[in-house]
Amino acid sequence: MSPGPVGAGSPVSPGPVGAGSPVSSLARAHLDRLVKPPGSLGSLEDLAVRLAGILGSARPHLHDPQVLVCAADHGIAAHGVSAYPSTVTRQMIGAILSGGAAVSVLARLHDLPITVVDCGVADPDPTDHPPAPNPPAAGATLIVAPVAPGTADATCGPAMSAAQCTRALDRGREILRGLPGNVVLTGELGIGNTSAASLLMARLTGEPLSHCVGSGTGVRGSQLDHKRAVLQRVLTANLGADQPEAALAALGGFEIAVLTGVMLEAATQRRVILVDGFVTTAAVAVAAALQPAVIDACIFSHVSAEHGHARWLQYLGATPLLDLRLRLGEATGAILAWPLLCAATRVLTEMATLDGAGVSGPQSTGSA
Amino acid sequence: MSPGPVGAGSPVSPGPVGAGSPVSSLARAHLDRLVKPPGSLGSLEDLAVRLAGILGSARPHLHDPQVLVCAADHGIAAHGVSAYPSTVTRQMIGAILSGGAAVSVLARLHDLPITVVDCGVADPDPTDHPPAPNPPAAGATLIVAPVAPGTADATCGPAMSAAQCTRALDRGREILRGLPGNVVLTGELGIGNTSAASLLMARLTGEPLSHCVGSGTGVRGSQLDHKRAVLQRVLTANLGADQPEAALAALGGFEIAVLTGVMLEAATQRRVILVDGFVTTAAVAVAAALQPAVIDACIFSHVSAEHGHARWLQYLGATPLLDLRLRLGEATGAILAWPLLCAATRVLTEMATLDGAGVSGPQSTGSA
Repeated sequence: MSPGPVGAGSPVSPGPVGAGSPVSSLARAHLDRLVKPPGSLGSLEDLAVRLAGILGSARPHLHDPQVLVCAADHGIAAHGVSAYPSTVTRQMIGAILSGGAAVSVLARLHDLPITVVDCGVADPDPTDHPPAPNPPAAGATLIVAPVAPGTADATCGPAMSAAQCTRALDRGREILRGLPGNVVLTGELGIGNTSAASLLMARLTGEPLSHCVGSGTGVRGSQLDHKRAVLQRVLTANLGADQPEAALAALGGFEIAVLTGVMLEAATQRRVILVDGFVTTAAVAVAAALQPAVIDACIFSHVSAEHGHARWLQYLGATPLLDLRLRLGEATGAILAWPLLCAATRVLTEMATLDGAGVSGPQSTGSA
Repeated sequence: MSPGPVGAGSPVSPGPVGAGSPVSSLARAHLDRLVKPPGSLGSLEDLAVRLAGILGSARPHLHDPQVLVCAADHGIAAHGVSAYPSTVTRQMIGAILSGGAAVSVLARLHDLPITVVDCGVADPDPTDHPPAPNPPAAGATLIVAPVAPGTADATCGPAMSAAQCTRALDRGREILRGLPGNVVLTGELGIGNTSAASLLMARLTGEPLSHCVGSGTGVRGSQLDHKRAVLQRVLTANLGADQPEAALAALGGFEIAVLTGVMLEAATQRRVILVDGFVTTAAVAVAAALQPAVIDACIFSHVSAEHGHARWLQYLGATPLLDLRLRLGEATGAILAWPLLCAATRVLTEMATLDGAGVSGPQSTGSA
């Protein structure tokens, strides 16, 4: 009945996590005793119940939340599937470390520390802009752990080898184990990675590619047709890769694979996984295909403007908290939803009960 | 081109407020230069542009935000239109002042001070529970400014006299002038007040009553049929009251009238009005009918679960930020949306530009 809170580094807890768990039922019953009409906080109450279930406490406490942005480059970007050149991936890591990226600004607003992981960013162009300032801005940490300098061109075969894929998954698990706290706000960065995510969506859900491919950073019209055609070539070149780990290796990318490892480990440790947008959902989908209980540890922050995301969330049975037409990644959607998680747990832990506050309940002729 | 920031107590500024204002255009252009694909922060960018327009600065700064909860009782509650007895209004003021209400908990999370206004709460029942502790919990202030101890029974004629309505509007203006800051998070409390709001919706929009009446705190089935029937009697008893101020007086209540005054003054002062749910929307609708520019100062925090709210927002041309199926009031929805306003202004004021961060823009073959 009382599995107790499970924090970072705790051993695997076999207790139930889902909304039907005893802890979730206790949380729901408590919500109905608080000074408000039952259910009147809507989705916030459902969120509170889910957080109670994940953290194994009817009065859950979120501590040391961590923003984790996994970055990598994609061989497929050479085919012009993105509006931006691959060099932007490394440049954006610099912008995050300098404190000027969207994720930097939003994380600072909520005092959230950021860890950026180079999971496989392409080698820097020596003629390129200078690297980010060193040391990085307070609150942002860089982990340099590239599997390789970008994935291979998936139009000719797998984006990564099976060994590279395993290494990326292991690295994700290790990185998560090195982070404190019981909530991880997952995000990503990588020119070309909406392509990799679209490919994984098509392969894992069986949806036609046209339902899975969108504008990404801003490809439209004939360039979007071109993106679809390139992605179709990738699917054809990797026909046999239909099991989750094989699909991940074939279709990429390193940041998605590392995030998959992060999520597998976070779910095992019963940490809350706050999921960002379309590309992060790809990691959820692979992780859940490998270990279905991962979904129970995920809170989906938002449905993005990227074509396919709403459908993919529906496929995963996920209800996103926000719909703000975001399409940026970097964990920005997760951070925007973060205050709702804080609010949900505070309602459970701080609101007065009707009895305690001396407030009358519904009249006997009240709600049926 | 540069009207400069307009704060509390500033003289009326004649500058344009809407999204097409020069300041809004400057804000939009700046957003497109930041280190992100243009438009990729979706609704957050639109929100930033709106805040710039309201506050008259392309780099707006929100300061001293105030939660304002207006409370009153309703004569119509005697007809059993709510799941709760009228005594709950006064009891809930006590719960807010003690720090245990939902609004207390959420406001504390974001360090927002609360002002509760007794705009016309019914006389306490001497056999009732003891009053709230005195002094109130830090962060909550009570203003006792009742127009009368509850409105009259609107099934027999106007809920308030024209003089009472004017007094309530004036009181709202005064209260707003007494608050610091350039953002007011508006909310309400009052057993029976979804009835008053539904009546105002029906009268001001011309929608059939069935589109305007919902469950409120939780009336369903035959009790909901009864609520509709009672409200139909009110409309019939107040047929001539079709101008905004006359409708407000006829259909009530005091908290809605005070909030209307608050909003009229806030819009004049170019403060941001963060609107809560269904009942607060009633005050917006009356205020906008009296002074159309009020809408330009309003940010709609959420669409609630209350039947009629989505339709009313649509009627007002409003796009809510959140959809969390809330139906509590007390400014809880406004507070849940508050971090999005902070995020939107921080994006405008703190994000690096592409040039400044040395990040490449789209490729020439990029987005069309």
